[in-house]
Amino acid sequence: MKIILVGASGTIGKAIDQELKVRHEIIRVGLSSGDLQADITDPASIRALFEKAGPFDALISAAGKVHFGALAEMGEAEFAVGLKDKLMGQVNLVLIGREFANDGASFTLTSGVLSHDPIRFGASASMVNGAIDSFVRSAALELPRGMRINSVSPTVVEEALPAYGPYFRGYKAVPAAEAALAYAKSAEGAQTGQIYRVW
Amino acid sequence: MKIILVGASGTIGKAIDQELKVRHEIIRVGLSSGDLQADITDPASIRALFEKAGPFDALISAAGKVHFGALAEMGEAEFAVGLKDKLMGQVNLVLIGREFANDGASFTLTSGVLSHDPIRFGASASMVNGAIDSFVRSAALELPRGMRINSVSPTVVEEALPAYGPYFRGYKAVPAAEAALAYAKSAEGAQTGQIYRVW
Repeated sequence: MKIILVGASGTIGKAIDQELKVRHEIIRVGLSSGDLQADITDPASIRALFEKAGPFDALISAAGKVHFGALAEMGEAEFAVGLKDKLMGQVNLVLIGREFANDGASFTLTSGVLSHDPIRFGASASMVNGAIDSFVRSAALELPRGMRINSVSPTVVEEALPAYGPYFRGYKAVPAAEAALAYAKSAEGAQTGQIYRVW
Repeated sequence: MKIILVGASGTIGKAIDQELKVRHEIIRVGLSSGDLQADITDPASIRALFEKAGPFDALISAAGKVHFGALAEMGEAEFAVGLKDKLMGQVNLVLIGREFANDGASFTLTSGVLSHDPIRFGASASMVNGAIDSFVRSAALELPRGMRINSVSPTVVEEALPAYGPYFRGYKAVPAAEAALAYAKSAEGAQTGQIYRVW
């Protein structure tokens, strides 16, 4: 398959690349690295990405920022970061990408454990993750031409513990390579409308 | 208790009013009706509402619009409607309202069954409902001064079947009065971070 991997240079993105490159053609996408560049907060940049990449069989997104911070210091502007980036950035990869996708292509987005198991400073991450999972459930009903869509909801990955460990005390971390399996299941399997929880 | 009820003139809002007015002081809020008016898509209008209403013990929101339509005809603009209105409109009621809330005050937001049980034309509603429920779980951890927050996730209500029945075939509708009980449980009970499913 020809797979577009957005966020290829991230911790989880690199593990997905390792898992899938032995069997598939991977087009690696980053903000400033990779085979092609795109800014997912800019729909014109997303469209240019798909025009360059050409028709594809799978789109995997392991990209998207949110604002982490104390709820007491967060207002509408801080929530807007995640809505524009991790939520609508990924959703726009689907809304625009469907025009370029082959029949039966799959989309795999990234949400996360905080939708159901929240932490301090994570209100925006929780909101965005819940939105992605529910969007996926619904979009699966209406995508045309046999297209599929799933999300992967990872817990904190072991490789991120040096940076994020203090926020996730008591959470059982998983290796990024284990999270990567869920992306393979989504792209190489046949299911749609699923939330693959890696936690 | 002094309860601010946003969306008081809606089908569910009226049922909440009926349930709670026998025991509490209700300040009814609508876009153009009620005791006070507010446009929840406008933070300045929300702030003006709380300044007029004064300190309160419970805020209940049964308000918020989303775009219903075929996914094939939806792009970023159609999703933006629900993100601005039903999602951030309700979230801003919390972010701004917390400044005016009494110690121990509760916030109760409205999500809906489509977060988990999707229908055609409901991709934006699903997204927004999932976002609200996950925001509530997380915000409950960080609200100050003993404040609480829950959401009510209703299925389609019987009173709405003449308009929405065709979209919800096979869904067991509930009377709005039954949904209203969940709002009473949230405002008059002691729980926080809960999603009260009325389905």
